[in-house]
Amino acid sequence: MAKVLMKGNEALGEGAVRAGCRYFFGYPITPQSELPHYLAKRMPEVGGLYLQSESETAAANMVFGAAGAGARVMTSSSGPGISLMQEGISYIAGAELPCVIVNMIRGGPGLGNIAPAQSDYFQAVKGGGHGDYRLICLAPASVQEIIDLMQDAFDLADKYRNPVMLLADGVLGQMMEPVELGEEKIAEAPEKPWAATGRKKGGPKRLINSLYIVPEECEKHNIKLAQKYDTIRRNEQRWEEYRVDDATMILVAFGTCARICKAVVDSARNEGMAVGLIRPITVWPYPTDVITRVREKAEQFLVVEMNMGQMIEDVKLAVEGMRPVHFYGRSGGMMPVARDVFGEVKKLYNGGAA
Amino acid sequence: MAKVLMKGNEALGEGAVRAGCRYFFGYPITPQSELPHYLAKRMPEVGGLYLQSESETAAANMVFGAAGAGARVMTSSSGPGISLMQEGISYIAGAELPCVIVNMIRGGPGLGNIAPAQSDYFQAVKGGGHGDYRLICLAPASVQEIIDLMQDAFDLADKYRNPVMLLADGVLGQMMEPVELGEEKIAEAPEKPWAATGRKKGGPKRLINSLYIVPEECEKHNIKLAQKYDTIRRNEQRWEEYRVDDATMILVAFGTCARICKAVVDSARNEGMAVGLIRPITVWPYPTDVITRVREKAEQFLVVEMNMGQMIEDVKLAVEGMRPVHFYGRSGGMMPVARDVFGEVKKLYNGGAA
Amino acid sequence: MAKVLMKGNEALGEGAVRAGCRYFFGYPITPQSELPHYLAKRMPEVGGLYLQSESETAAANMVFGAAGAGARVMTSSSGPGISLMQEGISYIAGAELPCVIVNMIRGGPGLGNIAPAQSDYFQAVKGGGHGDYRLICLAPASVQEIIDLMQDAFDLADKYRNPVMLLADGVLGQMMEPVELGEEKIAEAPEKPWAATGRKKGGPKRLINSLYIVPEECEKHNIKLAQKYDTIRRNEQRWEEYRVDDATMILVAFGTCARICKAVVDSARNEGMAVGLIRPITVWPYPTDVITRVREKAEQFLVVEMNMGQMIEDVKLAVEGMRPVHFYGRSGGMMPVARDVFGEVKKLYNGGAA
Amino acid sequence: MAKVLMKGNEALGEGAVRAGCRYFFGYPITPQSELPHYLAKRMPEVGGLYLQSESETAAANMVFGAAGAGARVMTSSSGPGISLMQEGISYIAGAELPCVIVNMIRGGPGLGNIAPAQSDYFQAVKGGGHGDYRLICLAPASVQEIIDLMQDAFDLADKYRNPVMLLADGVLGQMMEPVELGEEKIAEAPEKPWAATGRKKGGPKRLINSLYIVPEECEKHNIKLAQKYDTIRRNEQRWEEYRVDDATMILVAFGTCARICKAVVDSARNEGMAVGLIRPITVWPYPTDVITRVREKAEQFLVVEMNMGQMIEDVKLAVEGMRPVHFYGRSGGMMPVARDVFGEVKKLYNGGAA
Repeated sequence: MAKVLMKGNEALGEGAVRAGCRYFFGYPITPQSELPHYLAKRMPEVGGLYLQSESETAAANMVFGAAGAGARVMTSSSGPGISLMQEGISYIAGAELPCVIVNMIRGGPGLGNIAPAQSDYFQAVKGGGHGDYRLICLAPASVQEIIDLMQDAFDLADKYRNPVMLLADGVLGQMMEPVELGEEKIAEAPEKPWAATGRKKGGPKRLINSLYIVPEECEKHNIKLAQKYDTIRRNEQRWEEYRVDDATMILVAFGTCARICKAVVDSARNEGMAVGLIRPITVWPYPTDVITRVREKAEQFLVVEMNMGQMIEDVKLAVEGMRPVHFYGRSGGMMPVARDVFGEVKKLYNGGAA
Repeated sequence: MAKVLMKGNEALGEGAVRAGCRYFFGYPITPQSELPHYLAKRMPEVGGLYLQSESETAAANMVFGAAGAGARVMTSSSGPGISLMQEGISYIAGAELPCVIVNMIRGGPGLGNIAPAQSDYFQAVKGGGHGDYRLICLAPASVQEIIDLMQDAFDLADKYRNPVMLLADGVLGQMMEPVELGEEKIAEAPEKPWAATGRKKGGPKRLINSLYIVPEECEKHNIKLAQKYDTIRRNEQRWEEYRVDDATMILVAFGTCARICKAVVDSARNEGMAVGLIRPITVWPYPTDVITRVREKAEQFLVVEMNMGQMIEDVKLAVEGMRPVHFYGRSGGMMPVARDVFGEVKKLYNGGAA
Repeated sequence: MAKVLMKGNEALGEGAVRAGCRYFFGYPITPQSELPHYLAKRMPEVGGLYLQSESETAAANMVFGAAGAGARVMTSSSGPGISLMQEGISYIAGAELPCVIVNMIRGGPGLGNIAPAQSDYFQAVKGGGHGDYRLICLAPASVQEIIDLMQDAFDLADKYRNPVMLLADGVLGQMMEPVELGEEKIAEAPEKPWAATGRKKGGPKRLINSLYIVPEECEKHNIKLAQKYDTIRRNEQRWEEYRVDDATMILVAFGTCARICKAVVDSARNEGMAVGLIRPITVWPYPTDVITRVREKAEQFLVVEMNMGQMIEDVKLAVEGMRPVHFYGRSGGMMPVARDVFGEVKKLYNGGAA
Repeated sequence: MAKVLMKGNEALGEGAVRAGCRYFFGYPITPQSELPHYLAKRMPEVGGLYLQSESETAAANMVFGAAGAGARVMTSSSGPGISLMQEGISYIAGAELPCVIVNMIRGGPGLGNIAPAQSDYFQAVKGGGHGDYRLICLAPASVQEIIDLMQDAFDLADKYRNPVMLLADGVLGQMMEPVELGEEKIAEAPEKPWAATGRKKGGPKRLINSLYIVPEECEKHNIKLAQKYDTIRRNEQRWEEYRVDDATMILVAFGTCARICKAVVDSARNEGMAVGLIRPITVWPYPTDVITRVREKAEQFLVVEMNMGQMIEDVKLAVEGMRPVHFYGRSGGMMPVARDVFGEVKKLYNGGAA
């Protein structure tokens, strides 16, 4: 099948449509406005609905409603807008509803700027909203992967009845790459016997709810959620390994940042250094399994992030003190430069202090 | 000085007033409504302002404004309301403004219920909003400590120009205990030469801002913030140790949960078991120092939380794989029962599987 | 063509759809909720959009937007909700956009009740919003007339680029009557070369606007509007005359109230009294022409309203002091009883004091 | 007592404060922003509260609340903002609560412009909100009269438990004139035994309400309101007569417009024409009594307004067809020029067609 050239932001939209998404609610914010712009045109073409809500808070609650009615539904925002959705996200997760949320991370905190960043990692994977809940978080690193993961995002959401967050950044959104869209099989959401689609005569009452006023019931609900999260942790960890097998030094990076690190690995290998890369594709569930495996051989880790150090906690939790875990980061919309990362690699490889 | 009998919720309000807080903005939500109710009456008595905002989102932004004008200002909410404040909190932290936010945690996620919980731990200490920022988080365990920490909360906020969150729960809010209020010295906020109080003729322009449109500037700002957070980590870790010195098993718990664990420690000691308790008073900065110290002697840790396991990550990060870290938790508004915790302690102490 | 039995509220919806209306924005309020309920189902069947807005204020502004893009669009509300739309209505009228607004009048003022009333007459015909503007106001008195006037409403709106209000009440909304729907010719809105539908390459810029910052320009705009309103006054007055020709006493009533008065006229005629009825179908433009004509012969007028006396001003303005104009009204959701009105008629007819 | 030079906008604020107003809620809009700006500073000086609400809709509802608690409370806005308050105003009137609303009329409809106008006359006196209610409407024509009428406004509001609207325009707001403030007697609102100030032990329940779900009750309430409005019509009509006694031609104008007409009267008198002016001070209740009186002698009327012709309806209703009523108006923020009005006067005086 022929490849087409596509921008990341369009791929997010087209990927969603091909994954059967038919509802989009959102409020414009840079640097993701091209995605809603694309869907404003595209949704009507496939009989879907695009609606610009009055705020991000409203968008999250519209997603709540559409998801509760069984629709494949998506919203998208960046930094401040995603923060405004935290109440809604907690409700959606608490009510166990499937949906997809794109966070095109920008420089923060506060108003920050519109340059690419990864500083919403903690918010995404530890839970920005209240209560014990988890989002499945996917972190694509290419336009093709956006297309592929968007389908997975909707499928995972439905499979586990859980919101899925897709973490991207402005670089990925603006990047043009050739992609294979695959056959235009408009995916169908599976049967959703729990969806509140209007009670049929004699049919059972269906209730979408996150209220459990009796603590015993609420605890039971939390245990059920925790078991679901454990199942997801066991079954859905995804990552890419790059020249890891004989590596004594492992870089860990996701998204745009991992693309830079791949080049660094090649440079290091060219100079004879046994360096590899682990790129988490799911940042929740975190791919702890591969870290646990490689920590036996690898002598040290270097976590590279476009923030002040967030994912490093998850790497440390997996390494459990067995090996040193170093950090290299840029923040506020700045991106690591391959040469600088390579410099850091060389220093550490040769036993220099990190 | 004579002691007075006081409810936790009143103590939160009276403590704030005595700490010089003169502005309160908030929106009612159970189980913290008695606090705004108290301040609605109390604020006018001291020339302060109480304002019920149209939403929690608005409350956070009103706090932003008052803090930027140099006032000692507080808001309070629970679960869903705190989630609605996440955008505002990120802005306040990004603009480096001092304020105090009370989260009277209730059962979650979503609507959940109004029973006491600790399931917003991650949101509080990892950052529920977007971007690299940190809240100083204080976790009192008695009505007296509420009074004392409220003064500290405002002082720390001003000292570091950083929002401070006070984590409590409904048990603490409803509990009546005798407290010593101390002399009624209405604390005065320090001089705030940065506050935007109206430009004086010929005076310099003061700008409260979290926008750094140029990435280089934004990174510089993030590095400045990170250095501040490091200073706080070095200087402000607080905890209580209880029968820790010779303990081979260390319980770790905060807030209401720690009160239960203290009783468990006594029971264990009565039966000759060398059990101690570490109670973090600051949950951010996390009291890593004491964990690092005791992990040399202690053979195992048991983290007890009123959630599905959140603080345990910070304990594990401090223990660094040197000792097993076990978990016992109740959730959804349920509280651990001393007897059950003691049962867990005995099982682990005797080498039982956790 | 066969007649079908239809409820007034459904007829409002079906009439709109048959008139080519494809967009409905509104917020639920009794006693008109059956109308949006009907359209929520019906709109998707004809490829139209039904959207429940977050408030009536928002609904009015969504109507503004859709009308500006050239769509046939409607909203509907009652009393308090219509008041919330006044800003939007003034903007729509100021920008000369066509749309239809249904006011299912309920008892007022304030919260009032949900019973039928006509007490929003002044608001509708004198202008509830700010500035010199006028709504074309239609007042149907039967289910068949609802169907017919709905088509006219959209046509008049487009013809004059002016909002049209349809005044109804709960009695009319609940009433079931046989109606002839006519052929299902889905009416098409006329070409709207002014509509802001996205600038075409090389095409002219189209601007929907009510801002005229220069007073001279704003006055010119107001004069243009006034001329349009004069044209409408000359050409669009509509009314029904019932046994008027030889009447010495003329009842004047609109909507539901006129149905009662028609029965009163018959009763009076049965007793040999020369009584007739004028039923304004347009309450703006007010059918002054017919009043001016009949005031020559008729010796007195009796205005009957479901309010405390509002339309009577327009009758007096037309009668110009040449004949006495009496009033009989019920209010707060109470309806005139035929016997009582007839009693009033007899008293006045026989020279009794009004 | 010495006079001070004062701007109209400041006089509105200072007059309110001296009339005992201690609460102001509002949202900024040109051309009245200097009034809230003044009160933001002034209110705290007298122990009052100034609060900028999140919208005009909110401001009206805050006024509703404060009025219900017995406070002397005011809001202020212009055109679009006043339209947004219509629901709240109907509720306040329906609940019979005293308050003062300033409308600094600007050019309309829609966004219009910020120049002075009188085009919200209908909205003010016929009822922009829903239901049968009336506002007492005062129209000052000088800075001194602003001071004086502001006291009357609050007194009338309390006397009749009815909202009072003060109609002004940007010219009056910007005009500086010497005023006598009188002794600083901070007026006290009268006892308000109906105010909902918190139920006292054993005391009666006080309810502020506009809901009358039973139509019979709602009608009773409307009749009570109508009787109150009749009392006001009988007792509170206010106007200024200027050289009216022997006039054969009467100008009618209010506010800023009347100042211009006064000069025109003088010009006409200088040329020997018997021209006079009636300046309504209350535009509701309309000073019908004086029109009824002068229509005996006067041969014709000329209504001059800064709109397309609104008050002329009230003049015609009072003249009852006995004399010709002419109109001269400017709109969209344009003001009549004395010379032009005089030209119109001369033409009509000499029998020219209007």
